[in-house]
Amino acid sequence: MQDTSRKINLFITELIKNKIDAALIYNLANKDKHLYYLTGLDIEYCFLLILAGQKKVIVYTSILESERVKNILPYEVVVINKPISRMINYQLKKEKIKKLAVNFNCMIINEYNKFKKVLNTKMIDCSDILTKIRQQKTKQEQEFIKKACEITDKVFTEILNNFKNFKTEQNIADFIRQRFYHYNVTESFPTIIASGKNAAIPHYLPKDIPLNNGFCIIDFGCKYKEYCSDMTRTVFIGKPTAKQIKLYKTVLSTKKAAEFSIRLNKRCSTAEKAARKELGILQKKFIHGLGHGVGLDVHESPNISCRSKDIFLENAVFTIEPGIYFSEELGIRIEDDYIITKNGLEKLTKSTEQLMIIQ
Amino acid sequence: MQDTSRKINLFITELIKNKIDAALIYNLANKDKHLYYLTGLDIEYCFLLILAGQKKVIVYTSILESERVKNILPYEVVVINKPISRMINYQLKKEKIKKLAVNFNCMIINEYNKFKKVLNTKMIDCSDILTKIRQQKTKQEQEFIKKACEITDKVFTEILNNFKNFKTEQNIADFIRQRFYHYNVTESFPTIIASGKNAAIPHYLPKDIPLNNGFCIIDFGCKYKEYCSDMTRTVFIGKPTAKQIKLYKTVLSTKKAAEFSIRLNKRCSTAEKAARKELGILQKKFIHGLGHGVGLDVHESPNISCRSKDIFLENAVFTIEPGIYFSEELGIRIEDDYIITKNGLEKLTKSTEQLMIIQ
Repeated sequence: MQDTSRKINLFITELIKNKIDAALIYNLANKDKHLYYLTGLDIEYCFLLILAGQKKVIVYTSILESERVKNILPYEVVVINKPISRMINYQLKKEKIKKLAVNFNCMIINEYNKFKKVLNTKMIDCSDILTKIRQQKTKQEQEFIKKACEITDKVFTEILNNFKNFKTEQNIADFIRQRFYHYNVTESFPTIIASGKNAAIPHYLPKDIPLNNGFCIIDFGCKYKEYCSDMTRTVFIGKPTAKQIKLYKTVLSTKKAAEFSIRLNKRCSTAEKAARKELGILQKKFIHGLGHGVGLDVHESPNISCRSKDIFLENAVFTIEPGIYFSEELGIRIEDDYIITKNGLEKLTKSTEQLMIIQ
Repeated sequence: MQDTSRKINLFITELIKNKIDAALIYNLANKDKHLYYLTGLDIEYCFLLILAGQKKVIVYTSILESERVKNILPYEVVVINKPISRMINYQLKKEKIKKLAVNFNCMIINEYNKFKKVLNTKMIDCSDILTKIRQQKTKQEQEFIKKACEITDKVFTEILNNFKNFKTEQNIADFIRQRFYHYNVTESFPTIIASGKNAAIPHYLPKDIPLNNGFCIIDFGCKYKEYCSDMTRTVFIGKPTAKQIKLYKTVLSTKKAAEFSIRLNKRCSTAEKAARKELGILQKKFIHGLGHGVGLDVHESPNISCRSKDIFLENAVFTIEPGIYFSEELGIRIEDDYIITKNGLEKLTKSTEQLMIIQ
């Protein structure tokens, strides 16, 4: 079971703090995961009306789902038998609600126009509130993510132990998929296996071509009970030169510098600034952001980059992933998942960060 | 490789027919599959500007993706280095474009507001055009769906051959997942296994409980190269009464009546009306729509129900799935996938429609 009542209560608290009477959360065509986040339900046609003042929640859904929803959620369930905008409008009028919060990062224009035509209530945006509460992972969410990280670490060890059997980039990607199936999890995004000069393309996808000598980027993760992990290791195939080893060590020390700079309730931008400072002249080869939140989505809030206005909230889970890329030559990236709590920063992925050399 | 140029050309033809100069297709946070549909690319941060008059396409994407996109698409690729709304505005001004079509079924309010602030061009909705072209499957799309249907049929045969080994509903769902893994495909939606009175809940999800005697609904499908199948068979566990056999035959004859009523370029609503007529008094137990389009999404256009205004376009692929449900007692549903062409209706899923009795 999901710890959904805790999340609903968090949301209600934030609504009240922001003087918002009611919010409507829904999930048309799976465009958003907030309905799942708040209820554990993954239903296409389902609307959650949250009346903050009354601490009351009404769930509107189709007759096909109502029985199931009643068995799962402790809220009033109403079967949709009219246009949903009219049913919501009726309830808002009854409760004398003046402002309805919806997620403007999820509501599409055509839906907005339909609701606007019917509602006597003003719609306002609550995407910031949802983003903020979703960043602060509950105990259960933390457990799910830790489990996903643990499986990812296990599979990385298995990759190293089996490396001799891999002939192509695709072989490694297939092996990961097979191990994930074994552990009853799925990929959280398409695995990146980029060997030799292919590693210079950060979002390269594996091909069925022989593994090139040189650095090989392995960027992968899994979903455990819908919660993601995301880890990158760069191994070396063949015999690295002293210069190559030094480049690897620079990326690793960049990650350490970023880790060291991170403070609870401080700006995320600080971390990328610290990383860029450590890279020095090499920072022009660092062509992407330092990191991102991880949760139900593999890329979610906070955004960890120089331009980000986000701050590290308590119990936020995120990646730190510095990388350097020399076009047509090589790429190196090291990425781990972290949680920040009152006790400081904790690394959740624990695979060795030392350069693994495959000869 | 995807047959994307054919789809882009189809789209350009429709834009010109509708006197629209340009369209912007994108895929922020995977909220839509039209970018994938038109390009075969599944990239978060990527914008396709289609200049219909010039038959020119410009792809805007991040520096992380630009190399990959250049290798795949035969279009001009521009690296995003400013707010995308400003880059699009610059191009539209240069080309003297007055109206920009966007997909109002995909664009969220916050993006719309950002673009509106910057663009000197009016935004109009092209969701209807996209829905219409996406309904008419290309030869390649038809092949992918047929392959998905073929695998679904194979797995259904394997289910029947292994039925004696299944103790719980969850056992059957696990078996399907395992066979799909074997065939290198994934589930197109969470499998429904509903035995005994559970079958009365159309969207019931399997539990790890012993299989009940009585009707057992098996509703499942797979994705082959992103294209879905969706099939339902109802088997009987134990010995059915004459009345139960008659109910099953009624649902089957309802499907036949619906099939028989379907005509190219005629209304989809006709099919459900024919089905309801065949059901007679039992139609009050038929509590959902008759069918839906199938493609990149397992539920897409056309909608096949009494209220639908859609018509059966050439090469549309869709389900027909009549069902009857007696609360706390039983449920029966039979569902197949079809394509409609100039030559008429073709059934794509071919598993036996006769009542399979498991004793």
